[in-house]
Amino acid sequence: MISIEEARARILAALRPTHPEIVPLSAASGRVLAAPIRARLNQPPHDLSAMDGFALRAADAGKTLEIMGEAPAGHPFASALRPGETIRLYTGSVVPAGADCVIIQENAEVIGNQVRFRTQAEPGQNIRRQGQDFALDDELLAPGTRLTPRAIGLAAAANHPWLSVHRKPIIAILATGDEIALPGTPIPPGGIISSNAHALAAFIHNLGATPLILPIAADTRDAIAHAAASARHADLLLTTGGASVGAHDLVRDALADEGLVQNFWTIAMRPGKPLMFGQLGTLPVLGLPGNPVSALVCALLFAGPAIQFLSGLPGDPPAREPARCTVSLPANDRRADHLRATLARDADGTWQVTPFAAQDSAMLRRLTDADALLLRAPGAAASEAGALVDIINLRNNGL
Amino acid sequence: MISIEEARARILAALRPTHPEIVPLSAASGRVLAAPIRARLNQPPHDLSAMDGFALRAADAGKTLEIMGEAPAGHPFASALRPGETIRLYTGSVVPAGADCVIIQENAEVIGNQVRFRTQAEPGQNIRRQGQDFALDDELLAPGTRLTPRAIGLAAAANHPWLSVHRKPIIAILATGDEIALPGTPIPPGGIISSNAHALAAFIHNLGATPLILPIAADTRDAIAHAAASARHADLLLTTGGASVGAHDLVRDALADEGLVQNFWTIAMRPGKPLMFGQLGTLPVLGLPGNPVSALVCALLFAGPAIQFLSGLPGDPPAREPARCTVSLPANDRRADHLRATLARDADGTWQVTPFAAQDSAMLRRLTDADALLLRAPGAAASEAGALVDIINLRNNGL
Repeated sequence: MISIEEARARILAALRPTHPEIVPLSAASGRVLAAPIRARLNQPPHDLSAMDGFALRAADAGKTLEIMGEAPAGHPFASALRPGETIRLYTGSVVPAGADCVIIQENAEVIGNQVRFRTQAEPGQNIRRQGQDFALDDELLAPGTRLTPRAIGLAAAANHPWLSVHRKPIIAILATGDEIALPGTPIPPGGIISSNAHALAAFIHNLGATPLILPIAADTRDAIAHAAASARHADLLLTTGGASVGAHDLVRDALADEGLVQNFWTIAMRPGKPLMFGQLGTLPVLGLPGNPVSALVCALLFAGPAIQFLSGLPGDPPAREPARCTVSLPANDRRADHLRATLARDADGTWQVTPFAAQDSAMLRRLTDADALLLRAPGAAASEAGALVDIINLRNNGL
Repeated sequence: MISIEEARARILAALRPTHPEIVPLSAASGRVLAAPIRARLNQPPHDLSAMDGFALRAADAGKTLEIMGEAPAGHPFASALRPGETIRLYTGSVVPAGADCVIIQENAEVIGNQVRFRTQAEPGQNIRRQGQDFALDDELLAPGTRLTPRAIGLAAAANHPWLSVHRKPIIAILATGDEIALPGTPIPPGGIISSNAHALAAFIHNLGATPLILPIAADTRDAIAHAAASARHADLLLTTGGASVGAHDLVRDALADEGLVQNFWTIAMRPGKPLMFGQLGTLPVLGLPGNPVSALVCALLFAGPAIQFLSGLPGDPPAREPARCTVSLPANDRRADHLRATLARDADGTWQVTPFAAQDSAMLRRLTDADALLLRAPGAAASEAGALVDIINLRNNGL
């Protein structure tokens, strides 16, 4: 049995980020940049007015000025201002040559074609300087950046209609087991409905990758080998047994016949000890446990970072947050534990975490009702109610 | 000027959740349930073995038992066990009639066709009882639940190939302004690139709604009226000016000509004071400020809850978290402030938040680099470095 950290490191070491493709800006949200975004212009492109008001020379602020016209945003004034002249501007208007400040309209007294101001002015006042947000050729977004809506706005502002991003990884999902059936199809005797494949597909989708659900493979070597062949063009193959360790072993044996080079297959954790990782030629294969809770917790801890790494991100483990545990906890054994738990905020805003009393790895309903996993390190000492613990917020991590 | 809370309440009061549609399970992730999901079967459907081992009567554990066969998962044993008999089971196998416990294989000594156990046994040991996770007709997921990957797994396990969910709201986006151009197209004199529409579209997409980006409308009443007509089938129209308050006023005037009933148009907040809400017939219209930072902060605070409400959710404001501010803060005026800030974790896991020195509402690059908004209530007193403050984590809230 290896540690969670070692397992994650071994998985990432076997992966390479996908190659770039070009996508339109409007399809790039959530994707990971494969090349830097550099500014194709200054922003603002000119000195712009930050307010509605009048452009003038600061030195003229005490004088009565002649209003030469107005320049709405997008309609710059054609000529330069001379001493004694002003024009009316709006937020976003180009400040004309010859002017060096803007006085807001609330401080202006207009009489016919002339204006007097109630205040003095400083050069630069109420002007957004050319390039104040960013300058031509600035690197605005680095490769490896996941594109948030804000980053999409920034790429747009920098005049990029196309972006070079990592191709979405294709993640094949192979559920095996004579006992499982797809929802809405006839259930075999003693059988259950397959839930892992669709939950995993949704998780993969949330991480920005493309799930590929393969047909369920029966518990025969041929069926599993045939299914694995269908995954050859994927970037990662996730397998999940039915509920059966026997079936899981069969997957390993069948893939071994196909040339699987196994890296590890048990991890010091709960739920989810039987986790397998290996390579089938160039195809990385992550064998998840069959129990729904184990499968999804292992997906969160291992498949998530793997998929993010394939997508061009660092592949960090799910973010941990501090929380105060509302109950006492017994000492932990040598397996890292991941207790399904609910969260509430206490008066000062700290998370309060309460694990469910029952932690059966087949109880999907409990996992669905959970807000978080409460993390228990291998060998953790017993703790009293109120102790600080680490949690993983499930929803914020795509699950 | 009204408060943020009143504005949000007025917006939600004008909205109705979308009607239901049926979608396949594989397309339902992230959608909001419009009808409860009830279990169509017991889970487990039978008493199942939780381990690899042997099924027997607990009373027989001290005896040498006859191995009558095996029952892999999905292949139940055809007949009932009699006293003195056992069968080999695997995780997920149906426990045969006549047996009341399972002893794990590690505690079994097999000699030919017989087996002896090294332990005693209790009835029920290592058995997952029928219905232990959920029972036929249990309500597993309530209407108004956003479907996580776990919930998709649970709906699958409960045998639901189709789900009734709220239709995705269609959110039309209208950017106006003579000075703005789409990325990659010719930029008019004194013009800038439109960044709001694509950033808003990505935000809308992250919330699970469908963005509809209308062509940019020039600064004329006719152009704006024509564009508004294109949004008539949407569930919400978001408008955003260029950078011009003048243009924004024009939108209000043009929509007033079309019959807009205005509800409010200024809010005691920064950035983003000029926020307009009204109804154009049955179409709710939210007029966002033109400055990119103001537009996106207002989208987070108002459009986000509105879109979630339309989607069938409660429309809660973005989640707040506590953080320790690394710098002193001046007293705030009567407008709620939203300082763009970076986050780090301190030694005990608490967020440390540091606002940027410059908070110009045109500086999109700063907003893109920010992790959070630091919230300053109207009239908040000055505070020292180290004070507890509230933040909104931008990435966790779809921005």
